[in-house]
Amino acid sequence: MDIWHLLIGRPLKTAEAQSEEIGTSEGLAALSLDALTSVAYGPEAIAIVLVGLGVAGIRYLLPESLAITGLLALLVLSYSQVIDAYPKGGGAYAVSRENLGTGASHLAAAALLIDYILTVSISIAAGIGALTSAWPELLPWTVPMCLALLAVVTFLNLRGVGESARAFLLPTLLFIVGLLAVLGWGFVHPHLTHPVHPVPVRPPHASAFFLMKAFAAGCTALTGVEAIANGVPLFRKPRQLRAKRTEWVLGILLATMLIGIAALTIRFGVIPGGNQSLLSKVMAAAVGRSWAFFVVSLAITAVLGLAANTSFGGLPLLASLLARDRFLPQSFAIRGDRLVFERGIWVLAIASAILLVAVRGNTQALIPMFAIGVFTGFTLSQLGMVVHWVKTRPRGWQMRALLNGMGTVATGIATLLFVITKFPEGAWLVVVAIPLLIWMFRRVYRYYQRVGQELGIGRVPDPVEPRPHPIVVVPITPTLTELTRRALDHALSLSDQVIAVVVLFEEPGDDNASTKTAKQFLQAWEVWNPPVRLSILKSQYHSVVKPLLRFISTLERQADERVLVLIPEAVPEGLGASLLHNRLGSVIRQALRRRTDVVIGTVPMHFPDSDRKSTGQKEKPGLQS
Amino acid sequence: MDIWHLLIGRPLKTAEAQSEEIGTSEGLAALSLDALTSVAYGPEAIAIVLVGLGVAGIRYLLPESLAITGLLALLVLSYSQVIDAYPKGGGAYAVSRENLGTGASHLAAAALLIDYILTVSISIAAGIGALTSAWPELLPWTVPMCLALLAVVTFLNLRGVGESARAFLLPTLLFIVGLLAVLGWGFVHPHLTHPVHPVPVRPPHASAFFLMKAFAAGCTALTGVEAIANGVPLFRKPRQLRAKRTEWVLGILLATMLIGIAALTIRFGVIPGGNQSLLSKVMAAAVGRSWAFFVVSLAITAVLGLAANTSFGGLPLLASLLARDRFLPQSFAIRGDRLVFERGIWVLAIASAILLVAVRGNTQALIPMFAIGVFTGFTLSQLGMVVHWVKTRPRGWQMRALLNGMGTVATGIATLLFVITKFPEGAWLVVVAIPLLIWMFRRVYRYYQRVGQELGIGRVPDPVEPRPHPIVVVPITPTLTELTRRALDHALSLSDQVIAVVVLFEEPGDDNASTKTAKQFLQAWEVWNPPVRLSILKSQYHSVVKPLLRFISTLERQADERVLVLIPEAVPEGLGASLLHNRLGSVIRQALRRRTDVVIGTVPMHFPDSDRKSTGQKEKPGLQS
Repeated sequence: MDIWHLLIGRPLKTAEAQSEEIGTSEGLAALSLDALTSVAYGPEAIAIVLVGLGVAGIRYLLPESLAITGLLALLVLSYSQVIDAYPKGGGAYAVSRENLGTGASHLAAAALLIDYILTVSISIAAGIGALTSAWPELLPWTVPMCLALLAVVTFLNLRGVGESARAFLLPTLLFIVGLLAVLGWGFVHPHLTHPVHPVPVRPPHASAFFLMKAFAAGCTALTGVEAIANGVPLFRKPRQLRAKRTEWVLGILLATMLIGIAALTIRFGVIPGGNQSLLSKVMAAAVGRSWAFFVVSLAITAVLGLAANTSFGGLPLLASLLARDRFLPQSFAIRGDRLVFERGIWVLAIASAILLVAVRGNTQALIPMFAIGVFTGFTLSQLGMVVHWVKTRPRGWQMRALLNGMGTVATGIATLLFVITKFPEGAWLVVVAIPLLIWMFRRVYRYYQRVGQELGIGRVPDPVEPRPHPIVVVPITPTLTELTRRALDHALSLSDQVIAVVVLFEEPGDDNASTKTAKQFLQAWEVWNPPVRLSILKSQYHSVVKPLLRFISTLERQADERVLVLIPEAVPEGLGASLLHNRLGSVIRQALRRRTDVVIGTVPMHFPDSDRKSTGQKEKPGLQS
Repeated sequence: MDIWHLLIGRPLKTAEAQSEEIGTSEGLAALSLDALTSVAYGPEAIAIVLVGLGVAGIRYLLPESLAITGLLALLVLSYSQVIDAYPKGGGAYAVSRENLGTGASHLAAAALLIDYILTVSISIAAGIGALTSAWPELLPWTVPMCLALLAVVTFLNLRGVGESARAFLLPTLLFIVGLLAVLGWGFVHPHLTHPVHPVPVRPPHASAFFLMKAFAAGCTALTGVEAIANGVPLFRKPRQLRAKRTEWVLGILLATMLIGIAALTIRFGVIPGGNQSLLSKVMAAAVGRSWAFFVVSLAITAVLGLAANTSFGGLPLLASLLARDRFLPQSFAIRGDRLVFERGIWVLAIASAILLVAVRGNTQALIPMFAIGVFTGFTLSQLGMVVHWVKTRPRGWQMRALLNGMGTVATGIATLLFVITKFPEGAWLVVVAIPLLIWMFRRVYRYYQRVGQELGIGRVPDPVEPRPHPIVVVPITPTLTELTRRALDHALSLSDQVIAVVVLFEEPGDDNASTKTAKQFLQAWEVWNPPVRLSILKSQYHSVVKPLLRFISTLERQADERVLVLIPEAVPEGLGASLLHNRLGSVIRQALRRRTDVVIGTVPMHFPDSDRKSTGQKEKPGLQS
């Protein structure tokens, strides 16, 4: 077993694919952490905008949070309807493909891909942010810690997340109960702890645009509420009921936390900024830097890591669906040894790593890019649901369509608000990236169409029948070796027309030596005298490949016959040995493969790195002469 | 022509290899810059030790420099004798291999390899140091500027340094004349310029060990005096005379500069340290920050760049000699398109880059590693010369042997001094690296010996004769395509025993779909009905490679016949297209190549990236069915 498989585990049989069924509390752990953990950065995103008005601006945090909670209620209602309508899982891609057509589904897919990458980056950054808020001495290690956490999540996913939901329960519980307890304590015993900086009661005047800007920033707190509707098939029966219950519990918990954080922020006069997160400051104000503060900080880091993990379940699956529909490279649809979509996992990990390094692990720097993808997905899902109700017309479809219609309008407006207010700060990147992705989907699709045509997929191929032997060309070195012998031996078993080709060139300022080499070679060849033709190519340049390519092209053109090139190749075993062999065989192979249509064969001879003689062991009797 | 060749130039014909013959002044430019430019760091290395005694310690700089000059005189005399004895070039490797045996030559080779790398790093660091001394605002860019200069030198060498010596003349002249003029001016008009900080006349007490430590540090000023003796064949006839004359001129110039710098340092009371080099401070004290100061600073940077260039001539050549003697991988002996030893150039560039980054471009941080390699080479050369005189006994051999004997003792003691005094500061690294390199030489040699035996080099191979056809195995996908047809068509031209193999596996939780695929495939196969056997392999795992490997091994064992595996492979053209094809063909090929001794062939089918149809263009009539 190699090192790689020690790390990610042995290959799994298809039958070993796990199918776990979950209840409400596991559902909360497995599917809603992305949404719940938004409290680690959402309220701060609003507060950062508000303090543009000075300290008193923070007064607006409560009404803004109430508005966000209103939108949350609408979303929870809407997604309960999605759960009703799509028991097999109603991702934005599936819903919009079914109801709105390919164009909209591409928009949804592009938005979701970007969203998954940003969720991972933000969750990891915020998770490490929670750590460095609690232990400021870790601050210089922010980026390495982010990458380390990302690496852990990536490897867990490459292994395949087995018994995930149950393992997630404990940290999730600790996070929910702990955070609610800390917030509650803050309301009951404020004066036991930090001094309170009273915020002026009267908030300053604020323009509607300013308030909308803060509202848009707060929309990041709602990311992830769609995940439960995507994962309905994971629930135990009755699936839809359990999924809806989970959605509602999520809504209530998230709303409580958002309002609680907003109220305490105002009560303690906490101001965002510096190296400590707003949530951490609120917690420290509520319970001091006590054991409770540190335990809940650790729990927040843990659940943010798990939230990143959720996206690792999402993007590879979505990419595999897109690949199956031929909008992404097929490799995204191939399961690895551990039955996971490895390619998708790698792409997600690398893209997130680049983002994390680019913003140096700063959560708030990622906020302006976030939420666009999510809210585009929300809007398309809702719109798709409206179309769904209008098409299917079940009992009470008008009410349902109205509800989803309201959802469409609200999330659509939020998306636009977000793009407009955050455009120069980073939203432009997403606005540029989405059309690029869609363009890519289409290009990939067209390419596969064309290749499919050339390959004649779906047609029965033309008949094949036995045909004359090809000319076999064997490039050899000017030193006769066992490898030369093997290659010619194999060549003679394939055809009676075998040509050995040797390229000779001179060393600069050393004419005699090269003439000597040529003479010695010819003498040895005559003594050996194998039943094949010998062609000597003299080269003025210091290159074997070019004369060989020219020779083979000429042969193909002249002979009007098939050509097979058989390359003798030393196969070093181990890194040490491979540095000691020139890679001429490989170079010739690559050049021929790129430039010609000839069939290329290699005759391998193994050379082990260490001193044991393994060529003997490796050879099968059938292969020896 | 691709981008790479635009950068390094078109491939050269062997006949285009340049052979320039040089005179004394060109010799000085091409072969002695490494030595002359040592004044940029050698005196400073002594001064840094001396100021350990306080400012007055600098008084010792003059006697130390005189002692170094004495050693220089001895070396110049010794190397004149080397030039006499080895008109074909007497590098330490060649001299010690001839006179002292393989062991000593390995020691010399290892020392020289390390020396070349350090010369490049130190020259580049000191060159950029001269720049930042003159323009301190460039200081933050030290490391990037070092790497940029290194890159320029590397690319010039990958192109092949054509008319080098003559191009080097002007900067060399400017450097020598300019520096001597500035130093001279310093003696004549000191009061016109900087204020003089008088150094106490009486130097403090210093232990013998302390003074030896300073002397050892100063030995770095002598690095490079051996280069002329290595390059005798480059000179115009009478070669030896011209080479010796160049060696003497070098000695006089270097001695003058060393003593001049020492005297001025004391006169102006210049103290080493900070971000300006000692030489730059002395120059600034002599002529102020005038145009002369800036011009000579630039000239120093230029000649240090050229000194680095000299090592780029040395290491690749030495490595190619070692490779020809089978002590290094053969690739070091292969000339590239531009007839240079590319591998050696790359290794030198990368190693120097690592060193430069590790010390952040600080010249003095490299000093403790430097000089060990050089002085080990000096000692071995001198010792080899003693053996040479004793063996050959020409007229006056006693005097000659005595002179080289004195050289051996002096340089040997200097080497030991250097190792002892600089051990903890970095010399230990070289002391560890040299035995490692020697161990590597031997291991490589042993490996090639073994491979040579297995390949039967030097023997006439066993006879070859026509033999029966092999079994041809063609792995195919469960979708019949034009590629399948081509592969089977080629297979049938090679043998009448063709087996098509298809691997089927299930998707997790999707049994019906995979059964459907299998059924469809079998139906299509029956309709097509090619005259080959079909084997279906069912896999419990998600892997094509493993069942295929098992099938082929079984076949080899059972059939007692040769097996040829013919892999149909889509060859995407361009990066875009290559991302869209799975690399299954490659993966199978690599696995077979590593694990078995079967002959592996690929049947290529080209797919261009863009929309133009180039498969048609690429195909030759002889290849079409």
